[in-house]
Amino acid sequence: MLKFFFGPHSCALASHIALEESGLSYEAVRLDLVAGDQKTEYLKINPKARVPALVTDRGVLTENPAILAYIAQSAPKAKLAPLDDAYAFGKIQAFNAYLCATAHVAHAHGRRGYRWADEQSSFDDMKRKVPETMAACFQLIEKEMYEGPWVAGADYSIADPYLFTLASWMESDKVDPKRFPKLLDHRQRMEQRAAVQRVLPLHAKS
Amino acid sequence: MLKFFFGPHSCALASHIALEESGLSYEAVRLDLVAGDQKTEYLKINPKARVPALVTDRGVLTENPAILAYIAQSAPKAKLAPLDDAYAFGKIQAFNAYLCATAHVAHAHGRRGYRWADEQSSFDDMKRKVPETMAACFQLIEKEMYEGPWVAGADYSIADPYLFTLASWMESDKVDPKRFPKLLDHRQRMEQRAAVQRVLPLHAKS
Repeated sequence: MLKFFFGPHSCALASHIALEESGLSYEAVRLDLVAGDQKTEYLKINPKARVPALVTDRGVLTENPAILAYIAQSAPKAKLAPLDDAYAFGKIQAFNAYLCATAHVAHAHGRRGYRWADEQSSFDDMKRKVPETMAACFQLIEKEMYEGPWVAGADYSIADPYLFTLASWMESDKVDPKRFPKLLDHRQRMEQRAAVQRVLPLHAKS
Repeated sequence: MLKFFFGPHSCALASHIALEESGLSYEAVRLDLVAGDQKTEYLKINPKARVPALVTDRGVLTENPAILAYIAQSAPKAKLAPLDDAYAFGKIQAFNAYLCATAHVAHAHGRRGYRWADEQSSFDDMKRKVPETMAACFQLIEKEMYEGPWVAGADYSIADPYLFTLASWMESDKVDPKRFPKLLDHRQRMEQRAAVQRVLPLHAKS
């Protein structure tokens, strides 16, 4: 059985929702990232000390874009990605790569500047810029990338829980969701999905 | 026919090598990123103003991890990824996501700090830290992620040209390649491949 490691209020929410939608059997394990659970025994599972991680009977997968595609491929009946269409699959993968490498990275500069600099003045500078950089990401998604009513168009896919996860950070990143009506509508429809309602409470801070 | 947009000394080298290995027909178009070609007509192709971009007869794909997987799926005979093995494919995708979202991002802080901050002192601070962050990335790859003799083990895959691309930045990021003997060996074997020898001169600065 799959074993899924996540932390509250982390990007692992994306893969967790997809797992819940997939119908695959899995056990979810919640780490306390503030207490530093990810830097103890967990390092044997993921030496990067990050979530999410998905333990399979073959080994461990990390990184949301990879885990999301693995879930879609492992549960074809759930139709979470256009598996037989390299271009359509590539569009979803490009969207997820943008969230992973640009939008999530922009967000992280508000809290984890120490990854890329050493001075408090740099951390403060980075933190000040987050509302601008995150708004630019959401603007690009709203205007250029989002097809509607789901990320990739008519069909719900592994890009939707990932967008939902990052869009749920808007308020904490001081981005006004009303500036992005399509993404706000998407967020509200995501919140109504049964799988999301089952998973979300597990991600709340205790 | 596919049309591939790249810039010299950019991460587009990864997808360019994979295209060349794939046997797919494509036309390569070189942008002058210093002159700002990516901010002109090209914005209609990629509103993110970045390379690489791959124009297909269906539309445009961006982001190395997505383009690399698309190439592998579009040219199955080239055997650039284990397409019928979701776990093995997931490992390669996780590797590529790490290069895209962690290693390349660390590198970018040495040159493009303005993406995440506004003050010159922050840019200087970020730039100073690049040798440390990039060495940490290569250390993790060398010790934990790299299987050998290719990234994913016995078979060459779409992870190899991507690792090669980032490993070729070591000297400019002030990382001593001798600290990473497996990656240095990998880099030297990559340089001997015919596809790499055809593509590399196109990526040199003119």
